[in-house]
Amino acid sequence: MISVDRALEQILGAINPLRLEKVTILEALGRVLGENITSDRDIPPLPNSAMDGYALRFEDTLEASREKPAVLDVIDDIPAGRVSTKTVGPGQAIRIMTGATIPSGTDAVTRVEDTEKDGDRVRVFVPAKKGLDIRPAGEDVKKGELVIPKGKVIRPAEIGMLAALNRSDVAVYGRPRVAILSTGDELVDIGGELAPGMIMNSNSYSLAAQVAECGAVPLRLGIARDAAPQDRSRSPGQVALDRGRDR
Amino acid sequence: MISVDRALEQILGAINPLRLEKVTILEALGRVLGENITSDRDIPPLPNSAMDGYALRFEDTLEASREKPAVLDVIDDIPAGRVSTKTVGPGQAIRIMTGATIPSGTDAVTRVEDTEKDGDRVRVFVPAKKGLDIRPAGEDVKKGELVIPKGKVIRPAEIGMLAALNRSDVAVYGRPRVAILSTGDELVDIGGELAPGMIMNSNSYSLAAQVAECGAVPLRLGIARDAAPQDRSRSPGQVALDRGRDR
Repeated sequence: MISVDRALEQILGAINPLRLEKVTILEALGRVLGENITSDRDIPPLPNSAMDGYALRFEDTLEASREKPAVLDVIDDIPAGRVSTKTVGPGQAIRIMTGATIPSGTDAVTRVEDTEKDGDRVRVFVPAKKGLDIRPAGEDVKKGELVIPKGKVIRPAEIGMLAALNRSDVAVYGRPRVAILSTGDELVDIGGELAPGMIMNSNSYSLAAQVAECGAVPLRLGIARDAAPQDRSRSPGQVALDRGRDR
Repeated sequence: MISVDRALEQILGAINPLRLEKVTILEALGRVLGENITSDRDIPPLPNSAMDGYALRFEDTLEASREKPAVLDVIDDIPAGRVSTKTVGPGQAIRIMTGATIPSGTDAVTRVEDTEKDGDRVRVFVPAKKGLDIRPAGEDVKKGELVIPKGKVIRPAEIGMLAALNRSDVAVYGRPRVAILSTGDELVDIGGELAPGMIMNSNSYSLAAQVAECGAVPLRLGIARDAAPQDRSRSPGQVALDRGRDR
């Protein structure tokens, strides 16, 4: 007797991974990654705002309170997807949306809930700190980083990451084909007559489903009977198939 | 604000299940069962042996021991899949394989490890009890029993059960189609150029994969831009698709 671990080790030592296939990233769901995915970019590419609010110089807000707000000139308004060409100076701020790039000259974002708009100005009710609510470039992924190692099973999170890296397709290992051969004179396949003492060949169906669930391709070969086939010109598998059909 | 539970209840109260489809039992993997599955049979159909050994009358073995074995005449040998036509009388036994139907006249099975063959006879070294190692008819499933209720997600175990009930196909609910529309001027689709301030439309891919993992069919509609489309003769979805392609 050998242990399960030892048996598994021997089996895995004797086989090689299947050859690689190129599939679209959505087709890669549940497949085994066949290449190392490293990032060719910082994600996010530039520092951006974690909040809807105002990008400003934190020093301008040090004394700010509900009673004595800091009052700043709003010199631009940046929605997500646009970058301001303006540079913020002392006493100035830029309206910014979550995800938008932090404008030049600013070092903090104050969230909109802590401010009040007043025409072209904004009143800021709380002091900011340097870097407040700014997500730095490369916070999620750094350029050159190994993001998904070869051999990983690809889930929705990995597919999102591949899209974030602008990948339309990816190398995965081929799906193994797993043949299932039932053996025994007592077996009857679906649609057959269950004579006394016979049982349905149900395990081959649950096994096939388990194979499919693992991401492999099941091949149901039918039922091999307990006696050797009489016609040796046919392969045992074909004989089993034919006999399965006859029943 | 309403709670997630309340929102879910309202949503589920407002929708109906999709219409039923007939699929083969292997295709049903991961689908939602659309009918109640009741058993038209006992499984196993007849009492059968839980061991390789000898079917016998337990009273014949009451005094059996290693030193003074009970000695019985072996009158038949039943492999799995065959039923003996013989009836066992006092002092007799029938050789039986695991899963084979219990022969007439017997009320126990003694496993082969507790016996020794001697020509047409067998020596039995341990006393049996009534019903020992006999699996009764209907032990797994009783005729008329509700085996798998409507609404259950079908896993390999359910597929095996459907096969055991001689079912080749089954009614399942249709897969929902889930449309995914990304919105925002900052989004770039795969293959596009990532200008400053723009981000990849990666969430639509991870969402599509999650939809597929749930057993539904994802439809990626592309990116809707923040401004209303100028050409009102086209549907908003089509405009979004076209604009997504242009970028």
